[in-house]
Amino acid sequence: MNREELIQEIKAIITSNKTPKIIREQLEDYHENDIAQAMQYLDVKDRKKLYRIATVTMLADFFEYLDEDEAVRYFNEMDIRKVADVISELEPDTASFILKELDKDKKDFLIDFLNPEIRKEIQMVSAFDDDEIGSRMTTNYIVIRENLTVPQAMKELVTQAEENDNISIIFVVDENNTFYGAIDLKDLIIARKTDNLEDLIMTAFPYVYASESIDECIEELKDYSEDSIPVLDNSNKLLGVITSQGLIEVVDDEMGEDYARFAGLTAEDDLKEPLALSIRKRLPWLMILLGLGMIVSSVVGIFEKIIAQLTIIMAFQSLILDMAGNVGTQSLAVTIRVLVNEKLTAGDKVKLVLKEMKVGLCNGVMLGSLSFIFIGLYIHFFKARAWLFAFSVSGCIGISLFTAMLISSAVGTLIPMFFKKINIDPAVASGPLITTINDLVAVVTYYGMSWILLINILQLS
Amino acid sequence: MNREELIQEIKAIITSNKTPKIIREQLEDYHENDIAQAMQYLDVKDRKKLYRIATVTMLADFFEYLDEDEAVRYFNEMDIRKVADVISELEPDTASFILKELDKDKKDFLIDFLNPEIRKEIQMVSAFDDDEIGSRMTTNYIVIRENLTVPQAMKELVTQAEENDNISIIFVVDENNTFYGAIDLKDLIIARKTDNLEDLIMTAFPYVYASESIDECIEELKDYSEDSIPVLDNSNKLLGVITSQGLIEVVDDEMGEDYARFAGLTAEDDLKEPLALSIRKRLPWLMILLGLGMIVSSVVGIFEKIIAQLTIIMAFQSLILDMAGNVGTQSLAVTIRVLVNEKLTAGDKVKLVLKEMKVGLCNGVMLGSLSFIFIGLYIHFFKARAWLFAFSVSGCIGISLFTAMLISSAVGTLIPMFFKKINIDPAVASGPLITTINDLVAVVTYYGMSWILLINILQLS
Repeated sequence: MNREELIQEIKAIITSNKTPKIIREQLEDYHENDIAQAMQYLDVKDRKKLYRIATVTMLADFFEYLDEDEAVRYFNEMDIRKVADVISELEPDTASFILKELDKDKKDFLIDFLNPEIRKEIQMVSAFDDDEIGSRMTTNYIVIRENLTVPQAMKELVTQAEENDNISIIFVVDENNTFYGAIDLKDLIIARKTDNLEDLIMTAFPYVYASESIDECIEELKDYSEDSIPVLDNSNKLLGVITSQGLIEVVDDEMGEDYARFAGLTAEDDLKEPLALSIRKRLPWLMILLGLGMIVSSVVGIFEKIIAQLTIIMAFQSLILDMAGNVGTQSLAVTIRVLVNEKLTAGDKVKLVLKEMKVGLCNGVMLGSLSFIFIGLYIHFFKARAWLFAFSVSGCIGISLFTAMLISSAVGTLIPMFFKKINIDPAVASGPLITTINDLVAVVTYYGMSWILLINILQLS
Repeated sequence: MNREELIQEIKAIITSNKTPKIIREQLEDYHENDIAQAMQYLDVKDRKKLYRIATVTMLADFFEYLDEDEAVRYFNEMDIRKVADVISELEPDTASFILKELDKDKKDFLIDFLNPEIRKEIQMVSAFDDDEIGSRMTTNYIVIRENLTVPQAMKELVTQAEENDNISIIFVVDENNTFYGAIDLKDLIIARKTDNLEDLIMTAFPYVYASESIDECIEELKDYSEDSIPVLDNSNKLLGVITSQGLIEVVDDEMGEDYARFAGLTAEDDLKEPLALSIRKRLPWLMILLGLGMIVSSVVGIFEKIIAQLTIIMAFQSLILDMAGNVGTQSLAVTIRVLVNEKLTAGDKVKLVLKEMKVGLCNGVMLGSLSFIFIGLYIHFFKARAWLFAFSVSGCIGISLFTAMLISSAVGTLIPMFFKKINIDPAVASGPLITTINDLVAVVTYYGMSWILLINILQLS
């Protein structure tokens, strides 16, 4: 699959001097996705040529594969009546996403142009928030009544298949359009004419309500691994379906967002995003972190006099704080993934905290010991201090490192659980609080221990 | 969808005193995934009852939905002949994953038990590494020759559908089993008997080679949003297909891994994982970080004399280091996502670095100014120092913060690009190097500036 070459071929076809009919036929040999990708490498003139040559159905297929911002840009290059025609052929969720991005005037004008049935579908999908699963459904599916015979169902399938793409699962409703079950197309195809349709219907088919939040139902939807899952309204009537293709998009978006949030970005960033937007996305988080950082600094300030007596200890502050931060981040990442993937009982939660603390303890003992040895040697040989002094300081560092790591792993597990409990997204909120708490614990342990052990007991300076 | 209740219902059915036939019929009304989930809430005795009551096909369906470690545990509870029967009914990729987890003796014994055709399929899938796309393919698909008529193709479909589930795309090969194209089942269903099959075949269908790495082809596979994508060997013969369900699993795994790596875990961790394994996953990374942290500490140590003269400045070290770290992490997260999602030209890369630096510059100016004002006020009022002293110190902090943020955003973008270039996974390797470089830059800027401005020029102490 060499996409570069494909794109060059497609470009050559569109810019060639052949007749529109020939160009159209040649384009039909390429995958819609490849043509959609090629569009951004054409200049405006050639894209306008493509809009005239391709049929409305072909154009709609290309637009299904475009990013929203590209789609909007190309629609602005097109005659508005043609835009209306293309939008009529799009999946309602795609149409709804693109319409939201257009200027209000243009949008209103376009909505007037659409035929009433398509308008109704787009408006239904648009009515859901972006984080509700209803905003991701398609109305492109096969639905039959539960009281048909096998040949009647087969005939319905052939009729509806002309208009609808997602045929691998056939949905079954009763006379009130209430969801009744689903038939695997495979079972219908291999059924005999005299078989009872009822026997083919899976009545334990998974379903989802349109107003459920994507966050909450996505994990379960993935688990069922069905090709399409019905979306119901609150009175159990069938509104649409989520296809496995739609599910891939949702999973991808969700994971991208989790990942971005983890680094303190409010949403996934990208290359083409304007500067001001990137700044706006990152600045709030950084301001919070700055404020929290100032708290830590003012606590370090309390120990100013201790540090003044024994400046060598402050060189290792960054080491202890960084390590506490690293351990906290690891526990946070593990906890968030576990919270997302699994439904935990109270017992599971206690087990997770204990496990993380055990990991923190073991790693803390090992790294604390390493630090004790190597930093002791370093201070003795490179800073030319006596053995007792060197190993007293490195002992303080080792013990502080161990304590900080143990507490950080507990904090890194408990904080996201707490945010989850009070219904705040743990991936967004946990990071800065964990860093601050860990920094404070590490600073107080380290300088407190140094004060007691080194200054009061051993009277070093 | 209340899964808790479903699981309780299923449990009640299995533990009831009804006859096996009745229990089996009642279980058939539930989704395989729900029964698979219910299995872990049964005790061993009841699970053994289920193994006897359910047919081999039903059991195989349940096993498709189990985690590998659960599957292995349940197989160990089962008679080995029954295990062989169930494995024969599994998808070859599932069978291959589970077999890898079993004891060698048991595995060899089972492989002998399988019928030769199934053994061949499993061995073919097992031959691929876990990171090759071939390890994720299924051999469960419909394939026909290119020279059939529409009614012949339809007849083939009905025959093959009895054995194979993934029927929404029909793959077409020539006499040498070389991949020729694909037919959308929908097009075949609505075709007339006299239509030419050739006209239904999409010859520009995307495909992938079995030995391609999942990392490299996953983004393209997602983009095509097809229900199944053919997997070819190096001589373009059809070996298997990747279904969209398989794709969801792969996307999920890949993203989980990226996410984990970002926090310095070598793989996704989970609740049930043994302690020793968790420690082994995290310790190497922490040791690297400890080593790098020691380098930073020894550089801070160089400035010991400056700090001794002016201990107030060291309270703000953690602030500057943390902020540089936060900005670097944001740039890193953005860069990694962009590197994963898009193919960048050299020009795009320069643009990305410049954009990140502009974001760093703007945020740096704002946060630097904020720090200058607030820290100045803090030192004046809370530390009871003169205005000049307070704002000279806070000026140093502001300028260092600005410099550190600007450089961190460049470093956070360049380092992952560099690792990508030399073919090292940037998500794994970038974190510690970025932190260390940023810490060093921040420390040298801050103490260097303090030394020049505060001690040499203003002669404060």
